[in-house]
Amino acid sequence: MPIKTDQQAMIDAQRQQSSPTLRPTVTTLEQILYKALPVLDHGFIRVIDYMGNDAAIVQAARVSYGKGTKTVREDQGLIDYLMRHHHTTPFEMCEIKYHVKLPIFIARQWIRHRTANVNEYSARYSIMENEFYIPDETQLAAQSQKNRQGRGDMLEAKRAQHVLELLKQESLKAFNDYTQLMNEDEEGKIIAAEETGLARELARMRLSLNFYTQWYWKIDLHNLFHFLALRAHPHAQYEIRAYADVMLKTVEQWVPAAYGAFCRYRLGAAQFSAPALHVIRKMLRGEAVTQENSGLSKREWDEMMTTLK
Amino acid sequence: MPIKTDQQAMIDAQRQQSSPTLRPTVTTLEQILYKALPVLDHGFIRVIDYMGNDAAIVQAARVSYGKGTKTVREDQGLIDYLMRHHHTTPFEMCEIKYHVKLPIFIARQWIRHRTANVNEYSARYSIMENEFYIPDETQLAAQSQKNRQGRGDMLEAKRAQHVLELLKQESLKAFNDYTQLMNEDEEGKIIAAEETGLARELARMRLSLNFYTQWYWKIDLHNLFHFLALRAHPHAQYEIRAYADVMLKTVEQWVPAAYGAFCRYRLGAAQFSAPALHVIRKMLRGEAVTQENSGLSKREWDEMMTTLK
Amino acid sequence: MPIKTDQQAMIDAQRQQSSPTLRPTVTTLEQILYKALPVLDHGFIRVIDYMGNDAAIVQAARVSYGKGTKTVREDQGLIDYLMRHHHTTPFEMCEIKYHVKLPIFIARQWIRHRTANVNEYSARYSIMENEFYIPDETQLAAQSQKNRQGRGDMLEAKRAQHVLELLKQESLKAFNDYTQLMNEDEEGKIIAAEETGLARELARMRLSLNFYTQWYWKIDLHNLFHFLALRAHPHAQYEIRAYADVMLKTVEQWVPAAYGAFCRYRLGAAQFSAPALHVIRKMLRGEAVTQENSGLSKREWDEMMTTLK
Amino acid sequence: MPIKTDQQAMIDAQRQQSSPTLRPTVTTLEQILYKALPVLDHGFIRVIDYMGNDAAIVQAARVSYGKGTKTVREDQGLIDYLMRHHHTTPFEMCEIKYHVKLPIFIARQWIRHRTANVNEYSARYSIMENEFYIPDETQLAAQSQKNRQGRGDMLEAKRAQHVLELLKQESLKAFNDYTQLMNEDEEGKIIAAEETGLARELARMRLSLNFYTQWYWKIDLHNLFHFLALRAHPHAQYEIRAYADVMLKTVEQWVPAAYGAFCRYRLGAAQFSAPALHVIRKMLRGEAVTQENSGLSKREWDEMMTTLK
Repeated sequence: MPIKTDQQAMIDAQRQQSSPTLRPTVTTLEQILYKALPVLDHGFIRVIDYMGNDAAIVQAARVSYGKGTKTVREDQGLIDYLMRHHHTTPFEMCEIKYHVKLPIFIARQWIRHRTANVNEYSARYSIMENEFYIPDETQLAAQSQKNRQGRGDMLEAKRAQHVLELLKQESLKAFNDYTQLMNEDEEGKIIAAEETGLARELARMRLSLNFYTQWYWKIDLHNLFHFLALRAHPHAQYEIRAYADVMLKTVEQWVPAAYGAFCRYRLGAAQFSAPALHVIRKMLRGEAVTQENSGLSKREWDEMMTTLK
Repeated sequence: MPIKTDQQAMIDAQRQQSSPTLRPTVTTLEQILYKALPVLDHGFIRVIDYMGNDAAIVQAARVSYGKGTKTVREDQGLIDYLMRHHHTTPFEMCEIKYHVKLPIFIARQWIRHRTANVNEYSARYSIMENEFYIPDETQLAAQSQKNRQGRGDMLEAKRAQHVLELLKQESLKAFNDYTQLMNEDEEGKIIAAEETGLARELARMRLSLNFYTQWYWKIDLHNLFHFLALRAHPHAQYEIRAYADVMLKTVEQWVPAAYGAFCRYRLGAAQFSAPALHVIRKMLRGEAVTQENSGLSKREWDEMMTTLK
Repeated sequence: MPIKTDQQAMIDAQRQQSSPTLRPTVTTLEQILYKALPVLDHGFIRVIDYMGNDAAIVQAARVSYGKGTKTVREDQGLIDYLMRHHHTTPFEMCEIKYHVKLPIFIARQWIRHRTANVNEYSARYSIMENEFYIPDETQLAAQSQKNRQGRGDMLEAKRAQHVLELLKQESLKAFNDYTQLMNEDEEGKIIAAEETGLARELARMRLSLNFYTQWYWKIDLHNLFHFLALRAHPHAQYEIRAYADVMLKTVEQWVPAAYGAFCRYRLGAAQFSAPALHVIRKMLRGEAVTQENSGLSKREWDEMMTTLK
Repeated sequence: MPIKTDQQAMIDAQRQQSSPTLRPTVTTLEQILYKALPVLDHGFIRVIDYMGNDAAIVQAARVSYGKGTKTVREDQGLIDYLMRHHHTTPFEMCEIKYHVKLPIFIARQWIRHRTANVNEYSARYSIMENEFYIPDETQLAAQSQKNRQGRGDMLEAKRAQHVLELLKQESLKAFNDYTQLMNEDEEGKIIAAEETGLARELARMRLSLNFYTQWYWKIDLHNLFHFLALRAHPHAQYEIRAYADVMLKTVEQWVPAAYGAFCRYRLGAAQFSAPALHVIRKMLRGEAVTQENSGLSKREWDEMMTTLK
C-alpha cells in the first residue's frame, strides 16, 4: 500500500476543510483533490492544487475583464482552434500542482522537463523510506530487437521469477546496508550507541535506482500537455507511461474541453513529412507508389504506412 | 478612469460567484480579487487568480502529505531561513495571475522577465483603445547627471506644461490617424464606406509608445520576488515602479510571511563585495580607512558609505 | 542604407582578424560573419558568433569523447531521425548569436520567444536613431476578410500613396519632437543652451512603433527552429517573416544537414488531427467522404483539403 | 584513470585539427580544450566548445557594430559595474559546453539547474560502464550536528575502512548482477546463449546511485555563475563542489575579467538583511549591540558575526 495510516489521516484532514472562494473551481477535480491515486507498486499521483479551468483559457485568449466565455460550443471551438494552430500561451494560464512518489530512475527521466517547479524530498537532510519498485512479472521484457530503445518479448516464467527475486533481495539488502552505514534506522533511531554513522548525503549512494523518491511538481497546462504527449507515447518507458496515464485522467477531470482538443490534435494526431505528404497526395490521386519510388527510407515508409492503416 | 462601465459590471459579476473549495484560500486576497487597482493615469493591476499561500511554501519545503505546517512561529522561521539561504524552490510553489493595463514602453521593460506566462491583447486582430499615458507634471524630470540612466531635476512649470501639451495633442492625433488608416473607429465601425482600410497589424505602427496595452501575466512567487526586487528598486524607471509598488501590496495581502522575509532579506538588504567587506571589518576593529587606501573605486566607496549611513 | 560608414568600417575591421581555433568551424558561415544582411527598408540581420555545427549535433546525441561522427550518410540519417522523433536536445547543443535591427512593433512579437538571450539598445541611456519603417507600397494591404488576423487585398495606388506619405511625415515629426523634448539632437548635442531637456526614458514615449531598435539575440538551434517554424509561416506578419527568411538562409549556411531535416520534417510537414486521419484513411480505402459526413468542421475540412491538394 | 586509451586517442585527434576563424578566440582556454580534467576518482570535466570572451560581454552591453571594447581598464570597469548592479544579460552572451562524467547522485543535484542544455548517456539504449564512485577516506564524515544538512566529524579509520569495503564490494556485485540481468557484458556481448536478457531500461534499476553517468552540458555564463555560486559554496555537498572548483578554473581561463568580477561581487561577497544592516550601522557608530538587543535570532547573529570577523 503506497500510503501509511498517518499519511492517510493527514490527507483526510485536508479534505475536510472547505472554504469559499471567488476563484474558478472545478467540482470534478475537487473530488479527487489530495487523494493518492496509485501508480506502480508503491507510487502515487496526488493533485495538491490547481489554478484555472477551461474558462480561464478562453478568458486569457480574449484578455477579458470578466469571465470572457460565450456559449459552451463557442468556447470549445476557440480552444480547438488554439490547440490546432499551436497558440499555446492561453493554455499556460492554467496551472496544476502534484505530489508524486516515483522510482528514482523514472524521476531522472521526468526531471528532464525543465519548465516546471520541483521540490524533492532531500536525502541529504532526511532518511529515505524502505520502498523500492519491483516490476510486475507481466512487465519483464527483453531488449527490443526492432526498436533499440525499448522492450521486446516477455521473459519466460522461470527467468522472470529469478529476476524478481534478485531485485527484491538486493533491494532489501541495500536498504539494510544504508541504515547500517548511517547507524540510524528508518525512523532515525540510533542503531549502535558506540558507533559513528556516515552522513546521510553519502550513505544514500548505497541505494539502487529503483528506490522511491517523492516530490511536489507544479506545471502549467501547456507544458503538461507537452510532457504527456511525450510520456504517454508508446515509445516512452512503461513505468513513466503509468504515471502519464493517471495524470491524463486528472487532466480530463480538470479541463475537459482542453483535454478533448489535446486528444484530437496532439495525442491522436500524426505529422507527415514533406516527402510523405507528397506520397499521400499521389495515393489520393490514385497513383501507384511503392517504397522504392517514394523517396522515403524503408523506416519512414513503414512508419507512414502504420499510421495510415 | 481606467475602467469603463461595462468592464466594471463584468468585474462585479465575477465577484458575486462564490464556490466552495478544498484548496488553500487567502481571505485578504479574495477581498481584492478581480478589482482594478489603479496605476498611473489609465493603468491598473487586477489579481485574477492565485495558487497557494504561506502554508503552501512550508508544505512544499517539507514535501508533506498534509498541510505540513507547524506553529506560526516555526513556519515563519522556516520561510525566513529559506529566503536567507536562497532556497528558492518552495517559493515557486505559489503562483499568481494578474491582468495588467500598462503603457507600451513599460510593457517592453516588463516582458524582459522571461519566466512568466503572458497573453497580450492583439493589435493584429483587435483595435487598440484610445488611451495613452501622460505623465503627471511632478514626474517630468531632466536626464540625471549623476546616474546616466535615469532622472534628475524637475522641469520648471512652463517647460513642463509645454511638454505635456505636446504629448497629449500628438497622442490624440496619432489615434485619429490610426483609425483613419484602418478606416474604422474605436468600436470597429467603418468610417468612410467607399474607402479601403489598412490592415490593423500595419496601422498600429502609427501609434506612439505611450499608448496603453494590456495582458494577462502569470508568475510564480519566487520569480515575482525577483521581478519586484528589480522593478521596485529606486534605479527602476518611475512608471514601472508604480506597478511594482501596487503589486507589492497584493503580495503582502497574499503571503504575509513570505512578504516579510522578502522585505528583510531582499528589499531592505544590502550586498557588500569582498573588498567592501574587508573595509567594514577594518572599520569595526577601529582602524581608519579612507577611499584612497580602501582599494575601492570612488563610486563603490560612495555606494558603500550610502548603505552604511 | 541600413549601415553607416563608420559602422561598416567596424564590421570590416572585425572581418580581418582571423585566429586559429580547435573548435568546429563552418567555412560557409564564416563568409558572412559580421556582415549586415539587409531586411526591410532599414533593418538587418548580422551573424555575430556561432557554436557548433552539424557534427556537434551528432556528437552530443552520441555523448562522444571525440568528434562522434561516422559517414556523412549515417550522420544525416541520425539527424533526420532526431528531428522526426522530436529528440530535440542534441539540437540545443548548437548556438548562434545575431545582431538585429528591427522596428519596435516587430521586436514586440519577437521577444515573446522566451528561451533566448537578449541585449537591447537602451533608450533610457542612449538616444534612438532617426530611422523608422515605411512599408513598401506592395505590402500595403487591407485587413483580411477570411483570416481575421492578417492581410487581404492591396490598397489601390492613390490610397497607398496617402498612407505612405502620412506615415513618413508623422515619423519625421515624431523624431523631431523627440529631440526637442530631450533638447538634444541625434548626436547628443544640446539644442538650446538655456532650455532643460526631458529625461530620455520619458522623451521616447513620443516615438511611434515603426521606429527601429536593435539588439543582440542569442539562441540555441532547437529554439531557433521553433522560432522559424512560427515566424516563417504564412500566417506570420510579413515584416517578421522577412527576418525569418533571411535567418533561414544563415541556418542553411551553418548546419545544412539539420536545415534539410527541418525543411522536410517541420517547415514542409503537416499535422493531421485524429478525425482528419480517420478521413484520410477512408479516402485511401476508396470510400467517399464529404465534409458533412466527415465529422470535421467546415474550417478544418478546408484546411485539410488545402494540405492534401 | 577516468579516460580509456581509445577515448584519449579521440581527444588527441580533436586537439590536432586547428582551423582559422573570425570569431573571438581565447588562447588560454584553447590550451585545455577537449582535455579531461579529473574530478573525484573516475569523473572528469572536459571543455568541448565556447562562444565569446570578456570582450563579447562588453560588445553586447554596448550593442556594438564592432568589437565594442575600449581600454582594458574601461572594459574591466564596465564588467565590474554590470556584475555589481546585477545587469546580467550581457553575461548571457557567452556560452560554454562541457562533457562531464559524474556519479548519478551528483547528477541528480546538478540537473536541478534548469537553464542549461543537456544530453545524457542513455541507459535505455546503451550499457552503463563499470565505474562507480568510492569516496576518499578523508571524505567519510558523520552527519553534521550543527548543520542538519551536511557533514560533521570524520569517521575513525577502522569504521571508514569498513564503509569503503562495503561500498566497493556491493558496487562490484551490482554491476555483475546488471550484466547478468541483461545477459550482456560491458561490451554488449551475450553471456549465455540460451538465456533471454532483460531490457536495459529495466536492468539499470539494479545499479546504485554511486555509478557514473555522463552528459554534454551547455550553459551561458550568467547561469554558470549562478550554478557556481551555489555549488562552490561551503554548504554544497563535497562531491559537487569538487566539480564546481574545476569549472571555476576553466572560467578563469576563459573570461578572466568576468571571473574577477564574480569573485569580488559574488563568491567573496556577503549579503546583510535589513535588521543586520541596522546592527552594523550601530556598531560603526560605536554603540554596543548584543544578540539579545539586536533583534536578530541567535542563528542570524552568529552568521553575521562569522562574516564580519
